[in-house]
Amino acid sequence: MILEQSIKGKSKKQLISEAAAQLFRDKGYTATSMRDLAEKVNLKASSLYNHIGSKEEILRDICFANGQRFNEGMEEVEQLHAPAVEKVRALIRLHIQIATEDVTSVTAFNDEWRHLSEPYLSDFRQLRRNYERRFQAIIEEGIRNGEFKALDPFATLYTIFSSMRWLYDWYKPERKVSPEQLYEQISTLLMSGLVNEK
Amino acid sequence: MILEQSIKGKSKKQLISEAAAQLFRDKGYTATSMRDLAEKVNLKASSLYNHIGSKEEILRDICFANGQRFNEGMEEVEQLHAPAVEKVRALIRLHIQIATEDVTSVTAFNDEWRHLSEPYLSDFRQLRRNYERRFQAIIEEGIRNGEFKALDPFATLYTIFSSMRWLYDWYKPERKVSPEQLYEQISTLLMSGLVNEK
Repeated sequence: MILEQSIKGKSKKQLISEAAAQLFRDKGYTATSMRDLAEKVNLKASSLYNHIGSKEEILRDICFANGQRFNEGMEEVEQLHAPAVEKVRALIRLHIQIATEDVTSVTAFNDEWRHLSEPYLSDFRQLRRNYERRFQAIIEEGIRNGEFKALDPFATLYTIFSSMRWLYDWYKPERKVSPEQLYEQISTLLMSGLVNEK
Repeated sequence: MILEQSIKGKSKKQLISEAAAQLFRDKGYTATSMRDLAEKVNLKASSLYNHIGSKEEILRDICFANGQRFNEGMEEVEQLHAPAVEKVRALIRLHIQIATEDVTSVTAFNDEWRHLSEPYLSDFRQLRRNYERRFQAIIEEGIRNGEFKALDPFATLYTIFSSMRWLYDWYKPERKVSPEQLYEQISTLLMSGLVNEK
């Protein structure tokens, strides 16, 4: 299976990284050993080091690659000449897209980043805080100009973030639900609420 | 500190259980040893067994005690002679109340139940599924009678559940936010949406 994919053009390093993300998600980063990883990709533990530097290097790659995707998405959204409501919708779409495209990697990113060591941990926290601040600024913009209800921006931000976390546990490509359908459901609930006002 | 609380009338078993919940939350259930727990409550590991049977017994107590709180809350809500919208509001209040009253225990419950062994794991899953089904039935009732938008009940259920998960990481009694304020913010967002329709 692993080899089959390899033929389809993924680098060995990429395969190792994907196997590691699966282990990090299923067993947790701390409980995953290089031996587990070697077994999963059919290599000797000693050969693993021809492809990767350390377990933490893989976690680092996963965390910063996902962090970068969020920040690139944010940059595109900020450049939209659009009302705040469209920007928040676009960010909800971004979260669902990232969660459904590579659910294993994003789960490892989400649950295991605390295991990064310094200075990476601080860098990662800053990346994260930066993203959150920019998201909150868009919520505040919408509250100020009357597009949004006068809710607490921080509680709103975290409720929106959290509301999509079930996708990490639940989503598999085999599910017969498209990311677009999920976007419709979740964005309607968050933007217009459950209650039928008509 | 532990002894001080003991004087205030908590049983030794309860203190051990609280210390265990903290360890489960901070290190994870698997990584927590009886030695860690003994150190935290200033007992010899051998003396611990005068108060508790095993590490899993504590996890079991935490999981089933919290599960029971959710199910008791559900029973009260089901007996309300009220529209579905009031029932969902009451359940959102229940989730926030449980999350803020004993955040450590509920975090352990939420993250570590997978480590229960059989037959407890199956019992716990059933307890959980039972709660989810009853919550979903209330959402379906509201959709049927036109109180709620015609959203997918399952996606709605999970989005509502997830939306409050940030409280487990964030909430501390020291925060100057009351559970009631959190309820106002979160229930407004979920029931009426972020967008200002006026």
